[in-house]
Amino acid sequence: MNHPFSPESLRAMAGSVQSASRSLARQPTSARNDALVQMASSLRRHTDEILQANQRDVEKARTEGRDDAFVDRLILDTDRIESMAQAVEEIAGLPDPLGGFDEVWTRPNGLQVARRRIPLGVIGIIYESRPNVTSDAAALCIKSGNGVVLKGGSDAFSSNQAIVTALREGLRNSSLDTTAREAIGFVDTTDRDAVSHLLTFSDAIDVVIPRGGKGLIRFVHEHSRIPVIKHDDGVCHIVVDGSADPDDVEAILLNAKVQRPGVCNAMETLLVLSSATDQLPRILTALSEAGVRLHLCPESIEVARDLELPRIGPADDAAYAEEFLSLELAVRVVPTLTDAVSHIDRFGSSHTEALLTNDLAQSQRFIDEVDSAVVLINASTRFSDGGQLGLGAEIGISTTRMHAYGPMGLRELTTTKFVVVGKGQIRT
Amino acid sequence: MNHPFSPESLRAMAGSVQSASRSLARQPTSARNDALVQMASSLRRHTDEILQANQRDVEKARTEGRDDAFVDRLILDTDRIESMAQAVEEIAGLPDPLGGFDEVWTRPNGLQVARRRIPLGVIGIIYESRPNVTSDAAALCIKSGNGVVLKGGSDAFSSNQAIVTALREGLRNSSLDTTAREAIGFVDTTDRDAVSHLLTFSDAIDVVIPRGGKGLIRFVHEHSRIPVIKHDDGVCHIVVDGSADPDDVEAILLNAKVQRPGVCNAMETLLVLSSATDQLPRILTALSEAGVRLHLCPESIEVARDLELPRIGPADDAAYAEEFLSLELAVRVVPTLTDAVSHIDRFGSSHTEALLTNDLAQSQRFIDEVDSAVVLINASTRFSDGGQLGLGAEIGISTTRMHAYGPMGLRELTTTKFVVVGKGQIRT
Repeated sequence: MNHPFSPESLRAMAGSVQSASRSLARQPTSARNDALVQMASSLRRHTDEILQANQRDVEKARTEGRDDAFVDRLILDTDRIESMAQAVEEIAGLPDPLGGFDEVWTRPNGLQVARRRIPLGVIGIIYESRPNVTSDAAALCIKSGNGVVLKGGSDAFSSNQAIVTALREGLRNSSLDTTAREAIGFVDTTDRDAVSHLLTFSDAIDVVIPRGGKGLIRFVHEHSRIPVIKHDDGVCHIVVDGSADPDDVEAILLNAKVQRPGVCNAMETLLVLSSATDQLPRILTALSEAGVRLHLCPESIEVARDLELPRIGPADDAAYAEEFLSLELAVRVVPTLTDAVSHIDRFGSSHTEALLTNDLAQSQRFIDEVDSAVVLINASTRFSDGGQLGLGAEIGISTTRMHAYGPMGLRELTTTKFVVVGKGQIRT
Repeated sequence: MNHPFSPESLRAMAGSVQSASRSLARQPTSARNDALVQMASSLRRHTDEILQANQRDVEKARTEGRDDAFVDRLILDTDRIESMAQAVEEIAGLPDPLGGFDEVWTRPNGLQVARRRIPLGVIGIIYESRPNVTSDAAALCIKSGNGVVLKGGSDAFSSNQAIVTALREGLRNSSLDTTAREAIGFVDTTDRDAVSHLLTFSDAIDVVIPRGGKGLIRFVHEHSRIPVIKHDDGVCHIVVDGSADPDDVEAILLNAKVQRPGVCNAMETLLVLSSATDQLPRILTALSEAGVRLHLCPESIEVARDLELPRIGPADDAAYAEEFLSLELAVRVVPTLTDAVSHIDRFGSSHTEALLTNDLAQSQRFIDEVDSAVVLINASTRFSDGGQLGLGAEIGISTTRMHAYGPMGLRELTTTKFVVVGKGQIRT
C-alpha cells in the first residue's frame, strides 16, 4: 500500500502541532500527567487494533525476506503493548521538568533575575523499526510540554499509525485544553520525500532528534534546516591501568563487551597501559572464552599466541575506528595514559570512555582530559544510559555537544527563559 | 585588493584550531587568563598597525560612498583600541566557567554521577562591520576554553586582520602550551564562498554564531551543516495594564523606545490594555514629544487626533511585524491580557517582552504564558542584555531555543559531560 504525501497537509500538520505546543506549555502538571494516564489506558484499550496493524507490518517484512532479528524488533504482542503502556505511566509519575526556577539572583539595581524551565517547543523525532519508540517519545514530549512530530520507519508504518491513533484518543479523553490535544503529529506516509520536506520547517519545529542507523542520521544531518541533536556512533573505550583490581577488570570488561554487544554503550576498543600488561593473559583468556573475537595489536597478539587463543591481527586503524556492535573487540597496548587519551582523541566518537585504576592521579587526569559525553572510572560503559544514571527516562544519547551532551532525559527536552522582575527600573 | 581563498587552507586552519581547542580545554584557569592579559597587552602594543589597517578600511568605505553611520561603526581610534584591550582584561577577571560540577548525585548502586562544565569545542563567529567584535569574541572563546574561527565582514577586513595578528602574538607570548596557542583562527579572505565552505566543516566546528543583519543570519541558517545559534530580530513588546504606576509607565516606555532605538532590545510595539486607556493621552504625548513617530491602531489614533499629535495609521499587520530599529513605534489597544499574549504569539520574535502592572495575578499570567527569551515585569526591555542581567559579558542574544535562549554569557559557551565514579560496578 502506498501512502501518498502532500507537502501542504504535512505543513498544516506541523503548524497545528505548533499551535498545540503553545497551549500545552501553559497546561498545569496535573493536566499533562492526566494526558499520559489516558494515553496508557487508550493503548491498552486498542491492543487488538494495534496487534492487527502490527501483523500487516510483520507479514510485509517476512515477504520482503527480512531476517529474524529484524522481525523480532518489529513484532508486538500483548505483553509488549502492556510494557509500552506501563512506560507511559512511569513517565507520568516522574517529576515535572517544567516551571521550576533554576537560579534566582538580584542585580545591584534591585532587578530580580531568574532562569525558568520551559519546553523546547516542537520536537521532531525521526526513527526506525521499533514501534515502542512511538509511545515512548510521544510520552516524554507531552510530559515536558512539547509538541511532537513523529516520523517512524516505513517497516513499522501500520503499527505506528495504530499506536498514534490510540495515543491521540488518549489526549482527546484527557483534561488538556482543546488546542493542546493536537500536540502529537504523525507523518502519515511512507514517502521518503516527506522527511526532506519536514526538515525544512524551521519555523514550526524547534529541534530534530534522529534515532536509528548511520544512514538515517547522516540523511537528517545533511538535509535539516532545523537544529539536530545527533545520536551517533558509540566507539567506546576502556583503559586498564596497572593499579586496577584484576577481578574488577575482568568483570567490567566482560560486562561492557558481552552483556549486550549490539548497543551503543558496549566497549569496542580495549586499551591496556604498559603498566597493566601482566593482566593481559587473564583478560584475553576471559574475553576469548566468552566468545569475543579479538583484533589484536602486535604486542597483545604475542600474548594471545602464547596462550593459543584465536586471534585477528595485527589490528589496524580501521579496526580501531570500527563500531563493531557484535562480539568483536580491538585490543591495543599503549605505553602511558597520555597515549591512551591520544588514541581516544583520534579514534573515539565522543560517546563513552572508562578508565579502570586505583591511582587517584590517573583517575583525575582521565576525568580532566577525556572530553567524551560520559567519562567513567571503575565502572562498565554500559552505565552510559539515562535510566542507569538516574535521569528517569531517556530520549536518546546525544553526541552533539550543543544543548545536551550524553544521555538525554526530560530536562534535556526543555530550555530556560529569563524572568526579570523590577519596580520601574530603567537603563541609564 | 583581492584575497583569494583556497578550500584546502581553510580546512587546514579549522583543523589546526580544533587541535588547539583540545589542548586549550586542558589548560588551567591561570594559563587561559594569562593568554587574555597577553592579548590585551599585544593590542595596545600594536595600536599603530591596527590604526593604519583601519585607515585602509575607512578609506575604502568612503570611496564606496558609505554613509557616516556606517563609517562611524567601522572607525577605530586610540581610545577605542584601549577599550578593546580593557574589555579583554575584564573577561580575564571573570570567574572561570569551566571545571565546576553543576550537580553531583549518587545512584542506589553506589555510582557517583556528576555533570562537569567543559568547552563547546570550536566556535565559528561570523559577523559584520564593528571590528571590536573580533577581540571580544576571541576573548570570550579563549576564556571558556574554546577554539574560535573568526569570519568578519569584508568592510573591516584589514582592521580585523591586524587585530587578529595582535591577538595571536599575545597567545604566543602566554603560558599556554604550544598547541593551544593556535586556538584563534581567522578566515583570511573576503571571498564570500569561504563562508559557504566554512559552514560545511561540521567535523571541526561545533557551533556557529552569526552576528549581523538579517541577510547574514539567513545565509548562515540556510547553508550551515553546523548547529547555529541565531541572534535574530527583536520585535519587542511592552504591555501596559491599568494598575501600572503612570510615572513608571512613562519612564519605562521612553527608556525602552528612545534611549537607543537602533538596538534589538528596544521596544517596537506598545500594547495598551483597555484597563489602561486613561493613560493613553499621557503616554502618546510623552512619546510624541520625544520624537517618536507613532503607528496607531483605530482606538489610539482617536486619542492622538484629540491631542493633535502627529500620527501614522491605522497601523496594519506589517507595522506590527516590523523591527523599526528607529524612532518609530506601533501602538495598539487590546481588550485583555489574553489578547496581548495572542498578539505577541502572532507578531513577536520571541526576543523580549515586558508587562507594566501592579496586579500580581496579571504579572504571574504574563510570566507563565509568554515564552520569549526574556520576560520582564515593571522594567525596561533595554535590560535584555548579558551585562545588564549579570552574565558578565555577552557573546550575543539567542533566539534559538536550543542550548541557549536569550542573552549568552560565558557559561553558554560551555556544555557538560557526565563524570561517573564507581568501585567496580557492572550492569546486571
